[in-house]
Amino acid sequence: MTSSQNSKKQELPPTAWAVLGLLSFPGERTGYELKKWADSSLRFFYWSPAISQIYAELRRLEELGYAASARSGPEETRAKRRYAITDAGREALAGWAADTAEAGPPVLKHGLLLRIWLGHLAEPERLRAMVGEHLERTRGELAAVREAVEHADGVPQWSFPTLALRWSERQHLAELELAEALLTDLDGLAQNRQSPGRQADGDAPTPG
Amino acid sequence: MTSSQNSKKQELPPTAWAVLGLLSFPGERTGYELKKWADSSLRFFYWSPAISQIYAELRRLEELGYAASARSGPEETRAKRRYAITDAGREALAGWAADTAEAGPPVLKHGLLLRIWLGHLAEPERLRAMVGEHLERTRGELAAVREAVEHADGVPQWSFPTLALRWSERQHLAELELAEALLTDLDGLAQNRQSPGRQADGDAPTPG
Repeated sequence: MTSSQNSKKQELPPTAWAVLGLLSFPGERTGYELKKWADSSLRFFYWSPAISQIYAELRRLEELGYAASARSGPEETRAKRRYAITDAGREALAGWAADTAEAGPPVLKHGLLLRIWLGHLAEPERLRAMVGEHLERTRGELAAVREAVEHADGVPQWSFPTLALRWSERQHLAELELAEALLTDLDGLAQNRQSPGRQADGDAPTPG
Repeated sequence: MTSSQNSKKQELPPTAWAVLGLLSFPGERTGYELKKWADSSLRFFYWSPAISQIYAELRRLEELGYAASARSGPEETRAKRRYAITDAGREALAGWAADTAEAGPPVLKHGLLLRIWLGHLAEPERLRAMVGEHLERTRGELAAVREAVEHADGVPQWSFPTLALRWSERQHLAELELAEALLTDLDGLAQNRQSPGRQADGDAPTPG
């Protein structure tokens, strides 16, 4: 291995590891198949890379010797390139996955909550509508997660993906409960503001 | 307004809006005060920008006429620049906050779950230890959120931040429950694998 390869490995972004992770399950797959699979698994708790990113990472992984590809023969109507993980790739991935420091805390960027936090700028009805849209979208996502759980459950090779999907199913149920509680809190705040004798403005206190 | 200013506004990243959001509460603040505040509020459900990003965004917001600053006089031992939102800034921020399409779905990148999903590459004990570390970290975060709730609760200007922090308190409690359920699932999987007559390997099925 050259030192250039070594330094490239240290710089691998999470997307590269995620794509290598997709390859670590049994079988060989095309970039398109990897994208389809990421959309019904990784997406729910991490991220689904764009198809262009998947192809870029596959090229990089192949250059590093972490993946190998072969073009399908003339018996297929459309020739396709299928990728598989190499032993070196599996070893590197296992090392990365075992490094807790790499995992770090979960990243959560909740655009709805940013807007609730800025609720003083919005009409109360607009805020309620946003929470409603979030509930609807989350219910749709929950249905998609449940479909993925059903598909993976009971297949021995997918025991761990099934665990991750079950976590995601519960996470989406919790997200629905959180949104319902938020609606209740918004109602309480609106009632408080309507009741007399309540001070709505005043001097600016120092934020903590 | 020049067309160059107009096009700059359309390109404003979420960080710029978040910094402008910090300025939208009563009072004038230094960059350092904004950073401290972001760390005890925004951080829990969105993101706390680095202090260098906060200063960069403050300069940009001032150029756009969304914020104005003044240096403190000689009566302070160390001169400081304090920022305040302008009327134009408040109007632009309200427009941004009311745009639901901008909010989009929450972004969740859960490094622990990515590693659970790749559990076939790790020792079962390593996985349990990772979940344990996540539980410990989450308990620490929950304590920090509760401190922030206590600080903000009852202050009329902070009604909406308090709602967002309450949501975050519940979200951290849910995260603890999710991690506990994950530990139970990991135990179940380990027992299943030890019991006889269970097929642990086989042909690769097609992922969905």
